[in-house]
Amino acid sequence: MVTIDVPAFYRDWAARSGDVIDAAAGRGPDSLDDARLAYRRFFQDCFPAPDGVTFTPVDADGVAAESAVPAAAVPGRHLVYLHGGAYLVGDPRGYRGLTGELARRLRARVLVPDYRPAPEAVFPAAVDDAVTAYRWLLEQGAAPENVVFAGDSAGGAMAVSVLVAARDQGLPLPAASIAVSPWANLEHTGATMFTLDGVDPSVSRAGLRRAADVFLGSAPPSSPLASPVFADTRGLPPVLIQVGGHEVMLSDAVRLAAKLAEDAVAVRLDVAPGMGHVWHLLAGHLPAADRAVADAVAFAEAHLPAA
Amino acid sequence: MVTIDVPAFYRDWAARSGDVIDAAAGRGPDSLDDARLAYRRFFQDCFPAPDGVTFTPVDADGVAAESAVPAAAVPGRHLVYLHGGAYLVGDPRGYRGLTGELARRLRARVLVPDYRPAPEAVFPAAVDDAVTAYRWLLEQGAAPENVVFAGDSAGGAMAVSVLVAARDQGLPLPAASIAVSPWANLEHTGATMFTLDGVDPSVSRAGLRRAADVFLGSAPPSSPLASPVFADTRGLPPVLIQVGGHEVMLSDAVRLAAKLAEDAVAVRLDVAPGMGHVWHLLAGHLPAADRAVADAVAFAEAHLPAA
Repeated sequence: MVTIDVPAFYRDWAARSGDVIDAAAGRGPDSLDDARLAYRRFFQDCFPAPDGVTFTPVDADGVAAESAVPAAAVPGRHLVYLHGGAYLVGDPRGYRGLTGELARRLRARVLVPDYRPAPEAVFPAAVDDAVTAYRWLLEQGAAPENVVFAGDSAGGAMAVSVLVAARDQGLPLPAASIAVSPWANLEHTGATMFTLDGVDPSVSRAGLRRAADVFLGSAPPSSPLASPVFADTRGLPPVLIQVGGHEVMLSDAVRLAAKLAEDAVAVRLDVAPGMGHVWHLLAGHLPAADRAVADAVAFAEAHLPAA
Repeated sequence: MVTIDVPAFYRDWAARSGDVIDAAAGRGPDSLDDARLAYRRFFQDCFPAPDGVTFTPVDADGVAAESAVPAAAVPGRHLVYLHGGAYLVGDPRGYRGLTGELARRLRARVLVPDYRPAPEAVFPAAVDDAVTAYRWLLEQGAAPENVVFAGDSAGGAMAVSVLVAARDQGLPLPAASIAVSPWANLEHTGATMFTLDGVDPSVSRAGLRRAADVFLGSAPPSSPLASPVFADTRGLPPVLIQVGGHEVMLSDAVRLAAKLAEDAVAVRLDVAPGMGHVWHLLAGHLPAADRAVADAVAFAEAHLPAA
């Protein structure tokens, strides 16, 4: 296993993310391709794929994706994983450490859409691609009650917004969804956007605002599919929100829980004190990350048919 | 087992509670003693004590209490249970159905303080009595890491406020606390105080305001130990908040979760759609109640030393 210095990881992550945001906004020394490649390599170096999981490219009705299949999969069980990266960066290959670990622990096939990033494809391209991938999965014969969604950061917001879009398109909904450190409000008005700015260096309010500008194009930040705190979430399956106590996104994650509750969704919110953005990535290095991943897997299993 | 018609239970509960509040406020046809006795009998009829649990009166350093001991108790494991009743009514005998069930499932001795009610003893008498009972339990040799707190409604607020008071008095804190349907804000400003008023008939904003007036005496409703949404909760152990989606208290329960998160407490919020006030009482009658009790027990066990 790689040894990770957690504070150094968060600082380095901030640097890699900053380079991508700069490049995506048309500034900075690197091309966007270079910045994205450096970001992926950083993730791959930190979080190598676990043994015993096979990763295969998939064409999900025109949406590029990757399938992660563990040696011991429960037949018919699926996880759709929506990676983070501020809608600008991130890809299935960089996320193999986490998606492979989830595949193994949940004993599920994991579909990881390589949804189109901004600025090449602005809102709602990412959401559209994720819905397309889910529709494709159902067309392959997946039973919705055997599917769970999960995602982190931008993908944590999509773990809710994609279900809203799928519902609106008449698709049957999955059994449950897990939103890790969701970037749930692109208006960035939650109290912790101010009170915790700088505590976890990997994500800052300024960086989020710059990334949101690139992602949104001409759409307002209150667009429900970009900021699910503004969405009508009625009819969604049970949602688990996991957020770190050091995250600028904390207040907006609580607000997302409140919105889901108001809309009669079975919501569970877990706040992990002292944790930074998507600390789940550090499973194997940090007991709190192992607990968070274990909780997510247990939540998924509680809403799936028995293996 | 008694057969319970759930909607009828909530209507009848509203009537029994209303009589107590009327009597406590010096109105209504019944004496306060009579209204309290009718309330207890209603609870005893609905929720008889389970077999296999022994209930014994206890003097906890001057605070009357009851101890519920299951046939198979894990040595040294304790639950302190703070019953509900708007600080006006409720007592260990009426709660034997729920406290007995918790004793059995958690395999713990349950201490149920019969804290003094208002108007005879106004705020902060209830909190003082609960702290005294906890201090007594520690003096008997209970190890704080082997103690969990739980409570419902007024007792759900106390599941947080009593720990705040205990911390301020320098007592070692228990391993975890479980706040069921907490009456967390006596200012009653949460959105669902208005949007859900009448949905669950057992608890209304008007009834809560009248009860709060009796309980508070001359204290302001924002007193932190009466309304833990205003408390400094730093240093508290992990807290599970469980609240029903039909409760007027829902928004203030979410606010309590937000406050705990802001204060770096490990908080988990579970919202159960469609459920009314303290639906846990209906364990054995309602699958969602069984799940809620099972979740509470699992949360407690996850924070206690292995049996």
